[in-house]
Amino acid sequence: MELLREMIVTDGKVYDNNVLKVDSFLNHQIDASLMMKMAESFYEYFGKEKITKILTIEASGIAPAILVAHFFKVPMVFAKKSKPATLKNNDIYTAEVHSYTKNVTNTIVVSEKFINKEDNVLIIDDFLANGQATLGLMEIVEKAGANTVGVGILVEKSFQNGRKLLEQKNVNICSLCRIGSLENNEVKFNVADDEIKKG
Amino acid sequence: MELLREMIVTDGKVYDNNVLKVDSFLNHQIDASLMMKMAESFYEYFGKEKITKILTIEASGIAPAILVAHFFKVPMVFAKKSKPATLKNNDIYTAEVHSYTKNVTNTIVVSEKFINKEDNVLIIDDFLANGQATLGLMEIVEKAGANTVGVGILVEKSFQNGRKLLEQKNVNICSLCRIGSLENNEVKFNVADDEIKKG
Repeated sequence: MELLREMIVTDGKVYDNNVLKVDSFLNHQIDASLMMKMAESFYEYFGKEKITKILTIEASGIAPAILVAHFFKVPMVFAKKSKPATLKNNDIYTAEVHSYTKNVTNTIVVSEKFINKEDNVLIIDDFLANGQATLGLMEIVEKAGANTVGVGILVEKSFQNGRKLLEQKNVNICSLCRIGSLENNEVKFNVADDEIKKG
Repeated sequence: MELLREMIVTDGKVYDNNVLKVDSFLNHQIDASLMMKMAESFYEYFGKEKITKILTIEASGIAPAILVAHFFKVPMVFAKKSKPATLKNNDIYTAEVHSYTKNVTNTIVVSEKFINKEDNVLIIDDFLANGQATLGLMEIVEKAGANTVGVGILVEKSFQNGRKLLEQKNVNICSLCRIGSLENNEVKFNVADDEIKKG
């Protein structure tokens, strides 16, 4: 998606250790207009699928996911990074998600009420790097007996392991922007096979 | 807002100690259509004000806030509940927010880049109970030298202290639904003076 690539070049900042900071438009301050266009791109890509639910993880997945849910006219569910006091252990699906950046493992939680075996789920997240969050969400969908129809990602770091791991699961992935390298603190894009031409 | 009151009566659950659970449509699974209508209501109420930024706090404020930002065509900023590794102490505004429910005090954080003294800020949050989160966000706006134009709340527990504390700050509050009592595990509404008649 051309607009997203332009904003990454103009407003993104690259730090050592492959850190790309996009907090001025994607995950701290959020450009609502860009976010709406990105959500519409996912709707164009996955619109022919019979999606019944959008699933993401707090916090930075929520903004794109609610807009995608708006286009598909289905509910959005976000996984929580800790268990709410009002949910009992019997009432939840969980998955372990390791963060390589922070070197911690969190248990992510979804109430069993909100995903059921009839659901066709589209997973939305802001970043795909090592893929651990997305795989955790797919594990929860699987535990619910539901089906993951696809995965929509705003920014993919294609030089990390996530896409490969997701491709092994035979899931339909749409990344709006694929970054091939952040070496020498410089952004180099891959043009994605699955790219939405528009925008 | 009639639709929201209906959903609270139909799908909300009241637990002891004044806990109202609305996780099937408001803050775990989210009804995208309801959320869009609520955002539009805030736009109707505050639309004549010159708003330059929407401010909320992760995680459950994000969905309503991004939709409100979409209507106002301005950026949305969400305060974080912990300091991101890429932000230094000099680069942030912070406020202490005490949660009476969890009995913990968190430091909430906004990068100083994203609120400046020209900003007219509309604060959006899902619940107003004791008002601590909203007051924390107002404190951050004040530290940035900016102006809080108003506060938009989805569900107000009018029997708790929050509204009173906000009224002392002379801020324009719009609550889409005001709950007068949860006694005997039963929801009783106040009809709000500031209510949007439509919807």
